[in-house]
Amino acid sequence: MATNDHNLPDIQKTPDQRNISIDKVGVRDVKFPIEVLDRADERQHTIGDFTLTVDLPSEFKGTHMSRFLEVLNEHGKEISVQALPRLLDNMRNKLKAEKAHVVVQFPFFMTKVAPVTGKTGMMQFDCGFDAQINGKYDVTMFLKVPVATLCPCSKEISKYGAHNQRGWVSVRVKTNDHVWLEELIEMIESSASCALYPVLKRPDEKFVTEKAYENPRFVEDLVREVAMKFDGEDRIVSYEVEVENEESIHAHNAYAYLARTK
Amino acid sequence: MATNDHNLPDIQKTPDQRNISIDKVGVRDVKFPIEVLDRADERQHTIGDFTLTVDLPSEFKGTHMSRFLEVLNEHGKEISVQALPRLLDNMRNKLKAEKAHVVVQFPFFMTKVAPVTGKTGMMQFDCGFDAQINGKYDVTMFLKVPVATLCPCSKEISKYGAHNQRGWVSVRVKTNDHVWLEELIEMIESSASCALYPVLKRPDEKFVTEKAYENPRFVEDLVREVAMKFDGEDRIVSYEVEVENEESIHAHNAYAYLARTK
Amino acid sequence: MATNDHNLPDIQKTPDQRNISIDKVGVRDVKFPIEVLDRADERQHTIGDFTLTVDLPSEFKGTHMSRFLEVLNEHGKEISVQALPRLLDNMRNKLKAEKAHVVVQFPFFMTKVAPVTGKTGMMQFDCGFDAQINGKYDVTMFLKVPVATLCPCSKEISKYGAHNQRGWVSVRVKTNDHVWLEELIEMIESSASCALYPVLKRPDEKFVTEKAYENPRFVEDLVREVAMKFDGEDRIVSYEVEVENEESIHAHNAYAYLARTK
Amino acid sequence: MATNDHNLPDIQKTPDQRNISIDKVGVRDVKFPIEVLDRADERQHTIGDFTLTVDLPSEFKGTHMSRFLEVLNEHGKEISVQALPRLLDNMRNKLKAEKAHVVVQFPFFMTKVAPVTGKTGMMQFDCGFDAQINGKYDVTMFLKVPVATLCPCSKEISKYGAHNQRGWVSVRVKTNDHVWLEELIEMIESSASCALYPVLKRPDEKFVTEKAYENPRFVEDLVREVAMKFDGEDRIVSYEVEVENEESIHAHNAYAYLARTK
Repeated sequence: MATNDHNLPDIQKTPDQRNISIDKVGVRDVKFPIEVLDRADERQHTIGDFTLTVDLPSEFKGTHMSRFLEVLNEHGKEISVQALPRLLDNMRNKLKAEKAHVVVQFPFFMTKVAPVTGKTGMMQFDCGFDAQINGKYDVTMFLKVPVATLCPCSKEISKYGAHNQRGWVSVRVKTNDHVWLEELIEMIESSASCALYPVLKRPDEKFVTEKAYENPRFVEDLVREVAMKFDGEDRIVSYEVEVENEESIHAHNAYAYLARTK
Repeated sequence: MATNDHNLPDIQKTPDQRNISIDKVGVRDVKFPIEVLDRADERQHTIGDFTLTVDLPSEFKGTHMSRFLEVLNEHGKEISVQALPRLLDNMRNKLKAEKAHVVVQFPFFMTKVAPVTGKTGMMQFDCGFDAQINGKYDVTMFLKVPVATLCPCSKEISKYGAHNQRGWVSVRVKTNDHVWLEELIEMIESSASCALYPVLKRPDEKFVTEKAYENPRFVEDLVREVAMKFDGEDRIVSYEVEVENEESIHAHNAYAYLARTK
Repeated sequence: MATNDHNLPDIQKTPDQRNISIDKVGVRDVKFPIEVLDRADERQHTIGDFTLTVDLPSEFKGTHMSRFLEVLNEHGKEISVQALPRLLDNMRNKLKAEKAHVVVQFPFFMTKVAPVTGKTGMMQFDCGFDAQINGKYDVTMFLKVPVATLCPCSKEISKYGAHNQRGWVSVRVKTNDHVWLEELIEMIESSASCALYPVLKRPDEKFVTEKAYENPRFVEDLVREVAMKFDGEDRIVSYEVEVENEESIHAHNAYAYLARTK
Repeated sequence: MATNDHNLPDIQKTPDQRNISIDKVGVRDVKFPIEVLDRADERQHTIGDFTLTVDLPSEFKGTHMSRFLEVLNEHGKEISVQALPRLLDNMRNKLKAEKAHVVVQFPFFMTKVAPVTGKTGMMQFDCGFDAQINGKYDVTMFLKVPVATLCPCSKEISKYGAHNQRGWVSVRVKTNDHVWLEELIEMIESSASCALYPVLKRPDEKFVTEKAYENPRFVEDLVREVAMKFDGEDRIVSYEVEVENEESIHAHNAYAYLARTK
């Protein structure tokens, strides 16, 4: 291969006169089968959607895009907070770059147990890591958790019932020690009016309906409840929380956001 | 322009030996500003997303794609059940085709009035037309309406409350006379547990919460209620109804579908 | 659980007076980890996105949605043309229905080998099955394959170069015998100006550039070439082919479609 | 209305004990018909997708979401760099907040003229404003422009042809004086291998094919060319540029990003 390449001009390597360095250059929307760590079963098979980039100094015309795919192929299946520094180092070496950046999103499955009947089922959460080496290694976990929210105002002012809906809690978290994705999911779910479940029989449906009614939450309440949980967890050093409620009385959404560094 | 074109070979016009006619060929994802008819204000400005196709007999290698855009440019702004036959005829003439087909989707705004305070606001619905000439002219109106649905089972089995959520009702309708998009929207909204509104003050929120609680609807109820309304409307000759509930107790959706020709 | 259920009314089972049967009722957007058959490695892990429905006779108010999830949980991981009849039968039994319908979409990975250097990489294709029992068992395979297309007209009329782009070929196929997803992918890729690859070194890039230039294809050519391949394959009994080119000279797409039953 | 409201408790106004202020709270995915300024015709009709938020001090339980919709209704149709401060001020007054933030996205149409035949057509660009008052007024224009990019490496190493494709240039720009959206679109289009056009007859297609071949651009070239144009424009004080190429030889995209403050 290398010999083949030698016969063809390497345009990317030619010098560039524009004197403009590029913050990030690489590949995006790269799909790749991966394995992620899993509290229940050690690891699970899933599919990563990767953005892989490095910096490009002003003196070079281009980067060698195919090398990102080669690094990913050689990395092996495991994608985790522990394995990402090696992937980033390999990118820096192979691409001859100072900085390297990986964003990977993946569906993550967790077994959920119905609250009364104990019926189990699998539920998917969109999770990911945003990791870079820029002098030092830095990683952010991110995930999006659907929950039920029931409106405190609607409950208070109405003779009966209260509007409720699916809400989405998106968080970005930096930690100083290992935290399972499952732990973050549980902290978020327990902040809502009620968690969601794949399988609910009638006694479960009664339970979740009444639980949501007993725990009304505005988007404002939900961001604050998540913030309090994250404030109380020493392994979390900074976070962002975003809540978006698919209001069942409007075609638009209610929204709240806060960011904290401890 | 024509003279310029004459100097260049016309590959599309060359004969094709594969003996395969093509059902539909044309352009897709064409965005174009349009005006649609509006019961309240005569017409409203919106933006169409067009698929324009014709048939291609087996003897020709290709169609002349730029002509679809020229026909659209020359058509003028109005897109309606009344104006579409002219667009289809112009496509057939300009493309020298037997059959012509237009699918156009557009956001459609309707003023909604809050049920108690009378506060008004604009709400968007995704609507469209699917029109073709294939021997005769044939047009289907389609639209997607968000509504509130409250679960009859959850209401019945729970001490208090009932899970409810945003549901989406998608319909495709053929008529034998003029029907306003607004009429179809109102028939659908009145079949649900409650309609959605852009602006709701507290007395309105109390009203819609209680109304939804008093009108529980499964997806099964909702498709049937819409079907009954459409069965009772003589101008409607056939229809499809699809309901998808963004369940507030699950991460997946409940779904029902039925199709009828009278 | 059953005892718990007995204490609560079963609203779904109550009789319905509206005299309207429902064509399809069930759950949608259900994510579930699955395994699909794979020519190279026997099977691969992936993630299914399911719609599961049955018919509902006019005499019942509702179906029991949680049972769809239970059937899916009990089915085991394998989703294939061979395993789907058992899933459909279980749905009919558990839901007490005549008809059952499953649509499942999943990312499918195939190892692609660079044409000159032999460098390998994984490439994802969106695939799926649309299977039903309605009297008899019937299944359609569907998949979407990205390819390169180079414009014959642009090549012919220009001094040098020719516009080319990513095109998407979507097919739906019914067969009378086992056909690998990989076989369909290869029939489609070999109909295009050139296949796509995850890893291409410079000698490979030279190869694919020249190959595309030597094999110009309109969308019209591409649907016809795929049709000829499918016509020549006795295991395929009917098919639909749709091509959408993300034109590199326009912001809209070129489109062609044909359907055939042998 | 106000009297009606007085009879119902105002839960949002009740004091909150959690001592957590919220950075942003409001509504999202609000669709509203608007008019934006247009160099050719003074203004054009389009449709805005709004996120409207304010800050919430720690002492209040919630904000009054319906007021965002009322402010938008009262604002009138014009959305522009000039009109946004008034919208933000009205949000602050009505919501009794310190800070206010509006993000609005809208389709923007521009007439494009084919380079040889002069044939005209409309082309859509996704544009928007991100505006806030937080002490002072601050606004960012953003837009996404599709262009053609032709690979310099592929051109250099191949006997004939060169892979090219649709690329997307997304920019965010802060200015110290009025800049038309059309000016930014033209600066971006002129940095690419070639601009895109809705209507191209054969002489135009020859022109754009050859022009792209004569102006090869990596994603790296394209971010740099846009950066040079923005560096040379005194009204621009800071910017971000992101390029994503839908590579016609891969199923993944090539990507480059840079940000500068002058």
